[in-house]
Amino acid sequence: MTTEAVEITLTESAEDVRTGANAVALERLLTAEPVLVDVAPARDVVPGMTDSTILTSGAPLDWPQYTGGQRRSILNAALYEGLADSVEAAEKALDSGRITVHSTQQHQCIGSVAGIYTASMPVLVVRDETYGGTAFCNLYEGKSRHRLNYGSYNDEVRDGLQWLQNVMAPVLATAIDLHGPIPLKPIMTRALRLGDELHSRNTAASMIFERELTTSFIQMGNTPSAAAVTDVLEFFRDNDYTFLRMGMAAAKAIADAAHGVPASTLVTGMAINCLSFGIRISGLGDQWFTGAHPQLDGKFFDGFGPDDVEWIGGESCFTEVAGVGAFAQAAAPALQAYQGGDFTTMMDNNTSLYSITLAEHPQFAIPALGFRGTPVGIDLVEVIRQRRTPMIDGGLAGSSGGQIGAGLLIPDLDCFRSAYGSYRAQYDPVDGATTHGHSSSHSGQENAR
Amino acid sequence: MTTEAVEITLTESAEDVRTGANAVALERLLTAEPVLVDVAPARDVVPGMTDSTILTSGAPLDWPQYTGGQRRSILNAALYEGLADSVEAAEKALDSGRITVHSTQQHQCIGSVAGIYTASMPVLVVRDETYGGTAFCNLYEGKSRHRLNYGSYNDEVRDGLQWLQNVMAPVLATAIDLHGPIPLKPIMTRALRLGDELHSRNTAASMIFERELTTSFIQMGNTPSAAAVTDVLEFFRDNDYTFLRMGMAAAKAIADAAHGVPASTLVTGMAINCLSFGIRISGLGDQWFTGAHPQLDGKFFDGFGPDDVEWIGGESCFTEVAGVGAFAQAAAPALQAYQGGDFTTMMDNNTSLYSITLAEHPQFAIPALGFRGTPVGIDLVEVIRQRRTPMIDGGLAGSSGGQIGAGLLIPDLDCFRSAYGSYRAQYDPVDGATTHGHSSSHSGQENAR
Repeated sequence: MTTEAVEITLTESAEDVRTGANAVALERLLTAEPVLVDVAPARDVVPGMTDSTILTSGAPLDWPQYTGGQRRSILNAALYEGLADSVEAAEKALDSGRITVHSTQQHQCIGSVAGIYTASMPVLVVRDETYGGTAFCNLYEGKSRHRLNYGSYNDEVRDGLQWLQNVMAPVLATAIDLHGPIPLKPIMTRALRLGDELHSRNTAASMIFERELTTSFIQMGNTPSAAAVTDVLEFFRDNDYTFLRMGMAAAKAIADAAHGVPASTLVTGMAINCLSFGIRISGLGDQWFTGAHPQLDGKFFDGFGPDDVEWIGGESCFTEVAGVGAFAQAAAPALQAYQGGDFTTMMDNNTSLYSITLAEHPQFAIPALGFRGTPVGIDLVEVIRQRRTPMIDGGLAGSSGGQIGAGLLIPDLDCFRSAYGSYRAQYDPVDGATTHGHSSSHSGQENAR
Repeated sequence: MTTEAVEITLTESAEDVRTGANAVALERLLTAEPVLVDVAPARDVVPGMTDSTILTSGAPLDWPQYTGGQRRSILNAALYEGLADSVEAAEKALDSGRITVHSTQQHQCIGSVAGIYTASMPVLVVRDETYGGTAFCNLYEGKSRHRLNYGSYNDEVRDGLQWLQNVMAPVLATAIDLHGPIPLKPIMTRALRLGDELHSRNTAASMIFERELTTSFIQMGNTPSAAAVTDVLEFFRDNDYTFLRMGMAAAKAIADAAHGVPASTLVTGMAINCLSFGIRISGLGDQWFTGAHPQLDGKFFDGFGPDDVEWIGGESCFTEVAGVGAFAQAAAPALQAYQGGDFTTMMDNNTSLYSITLAEHPQFAIPALGFRGTPVGIDLVEVIRQRRTPMIDGGLAGSSGGQIGAGLLIPDLDCFRSAYGSYRAQYDPVDGATTHGHSSSHSGQENAR
C-alpha cells in the first residue's frame, strides 16, 4: 500500500449526499434475500449466453489481453464445449470472434478463480427475493487440485465436468424442485456458528445444505436414479467446498442489490483477472477500477511456494463484499490449517476491518467476538481514509495449472484511489478536478462494461 | 475449594510405581476405540438389567437415600415402564424391593442428568474395539425442557419416550445394520473443528452422524417405513443434542478402558447424584469418592435463577474425563449463547486444565489454540497439587422439574482429597496413615459398588 498522502475531504454537501446514498445502498446490501431456485444449463438461464460464449472472471478484457493461465483456461473451455478440436483451432476461433469471451460480471455470473463458464455447464440460479435480481454460479468441480477453474485440463477434469452436468445437476435440480426454493442466508448465518467463514471454509454450510435436501433425496426414489443420488451424496461427503458456489451466488445477488445507488461509495464488487485486481463502486456504474494484484500471505501445498503463484482470475471475493470470508475469519479458527496464520492474528485482522465498513451485520455474527456482527459494507472513503484495504481469503493457482495453496490476499490501495478520484470528479467536481490526477496513473487497466 | 494445606509427597518408590501405572492407564484412555454397533432395548443388552430394574445416575445409593427430583424421576420411571400404576404404588414397590434401583455405573451405562433407564428403553450399544469393553447410553429425548431425565413426567414426556422406542430405535438400528459399525472418535475429532465441545454443544457432531447414515436411510426404503425415516430426520434437524448420547457412551467406553490399573491416579469417572458429586480413580477399584455438589456459573432460561437449581444426577461429565466438554470449551465459542461466559474466559479456562492432566490428546484438537490437543487424563495428584478441580460443562435441572439452564460446574476439592487419602493408605502406607485422616470427614457419602 502506498504512503502518499491522499486528499479525503469532500465538500459538506457532497458528504451529506454520500451519507444518504450509503444508507440506501447498505440497506439493500443487508436486506437482499438470496434464494436458490434452480440448477440449469447456462445457455437456458444466463442472460446473453450463447453456445459460443465463454465467461471468465474479472474486470472485462478483450480476448488478446488474456494471458497465461487465464488464457489457457479459456482455450480449454472451448475444447471442453466442443467449440474447437485443438488449442490452435480455439485460438483462431477466438481471434476471429467465432467464439466470444466475456466477463462473468457482464452476465450476472460470478467466477471462482478463472471462473470458466460454457453454455452446457449447469449453473446455480439464485434469486434475490427482496429486490428481484438473479445471480448465477457454476458448480464446484471437487477437491482434486486440478480443475478447469484452476487452469487445469485433462481427461479427469473433463470427466468431472461431465459428471456435474449429467449426474449432479439433474439430482440437485430435482431435489430443489421437491424441496422448494432454499434461502441461503439462514444457512450462511448458521455456518458461521459452526466454524465456517464461507469463503475458504465451507464445511459446515455444505453439511447444512446437504441436510436441508436429505428428505428430498429420499423422496426422489429412482428419479433420475438411486445410484445418481448416492453418487451425489458421496460427492458431498468428500467435498467440503460444495457450498462455496451457493455462497458465491448469494454474495453476487447481495452485492448486485446494493449496486447502482447514485453517490454511494459502497464497494459492490471485487474481482481479479490475469492483469489486475478490480473493484466497482455502487455509485459509479459498471466501471471497474483496477490496479495491482494483491499482496498475499499464503500457505502452500507441498512442493510449491510464493514464486509459483499465478493470477488467473477470481471473484469469490464477493463473499467479502457481502460481509463473510476474511470479514468473518475469526469465526473459522480451523482455517489456519488451510491458509496459515494463527488465531490471534485472525481475530486482530477481523477486528481491524470494522474500521473500513459501514455496519455490523445483523445476521452474520462471530461467536469468538461475542456474537458481534461481521464488518460489512466496505466504504471506499474509509478505505482511503484509513489506508486499509479489505482482506480476502483465497485459493492460489499455480503457473503450471492447478491449485497450489491458499492464503490471505491484501489488495493495493491503487484501484481504490483511482475509484475515489473518479468519484470526486463525478460527485464533487469543485475539487474533483485536482484529485482526479491522483488516479490517472492507475487508469490504464480501467474497463468500461 | 478448600485452602487447607494438603500433603502431596509420595515416597520415591510409590511415585515411580504411580508414574508407570499412569502411563498404562493413559495409553488405554487415548487408544480405546468406541464404535456404535447397535440400538436395542436395555433388557436385551445391558448386563444384569431386569424388567423391574431402574437405573439412575451417580455413585450408588440405597433407595431410601434418593431424594427430591432424582427420587421423583425414579418413581416416574416405574410409571412409564408400567411397573406401578401410581406414584404411591411405585414407592411401595421400591420400598419392598419388588422394583430395584441401581446406579447406571453398576451396569456399564451412563446417565444424562437423572439418567433414568427402564428395561424397555432403547440404548445405544458402543463397543470399544481396542480393549473389548461395551458401554450403553439411552437416547436423547429432544429439545423440550421437560424430559424424564430432567425430572419431568407428563403425557408429552411419555409419548416422546414411546416415539424413541417405536420409531427412532428401529430406524437407527436398521440404518446401523446397513451401514456397519460407526467409529465415534473420528466424528468427535471432526466436530471439534466445527464448533462443538461435545458436552454442551453437539450441533456439528449430530450433523456428521446424520450424514454418516444418510445413504443407509435412502437404502432402507420402507423398512420400517418411509414415514418413520422422515420422522427421524426431522428429529435430527430439530435436535442439535442428538449426538450427546453417542458421545457419552463413547466417553464411558473410553473411561472404562482406563479404569482398573493398579496404582494409577487417573480419574476414570465423575458422576453426580442427589446427594453428592463423586469420582472414581483407576487404581482404586469401584469405590466412588464423594463430596459436595459443584459450584456453578450458570446461564438460566427466562424466569429461572441459581436458587432454582436442583441436583438430580448427571454423568455426562464422563465427556470431560475423556478430554472433551469443558476440556475442549475453546473449540466452541458459540457455547456462550447457551451457558454464558465470554470467549476469552473460555480460552483461559481451557488452557488452565492442562495443569491437571497427563497429556494433550493426540486426536481431539482445539483450532483456536493452534490445534493443540485437548487436556486429557485428569490426574488426582495434580488436582491436589494445583488445588484445581476439573471443570464441567453441564445442563441444569430445576427444583420444579425440567431443564432451567446450563453452566460451568466446578467441583469441590473434598472428594479428590478423600480419594487421595485412600490412595496413600493403599499404595504408600508409610505416611498414608497420617494423610488418610484428612479425608475422613468427607467419607460419609462414600459408596462401595
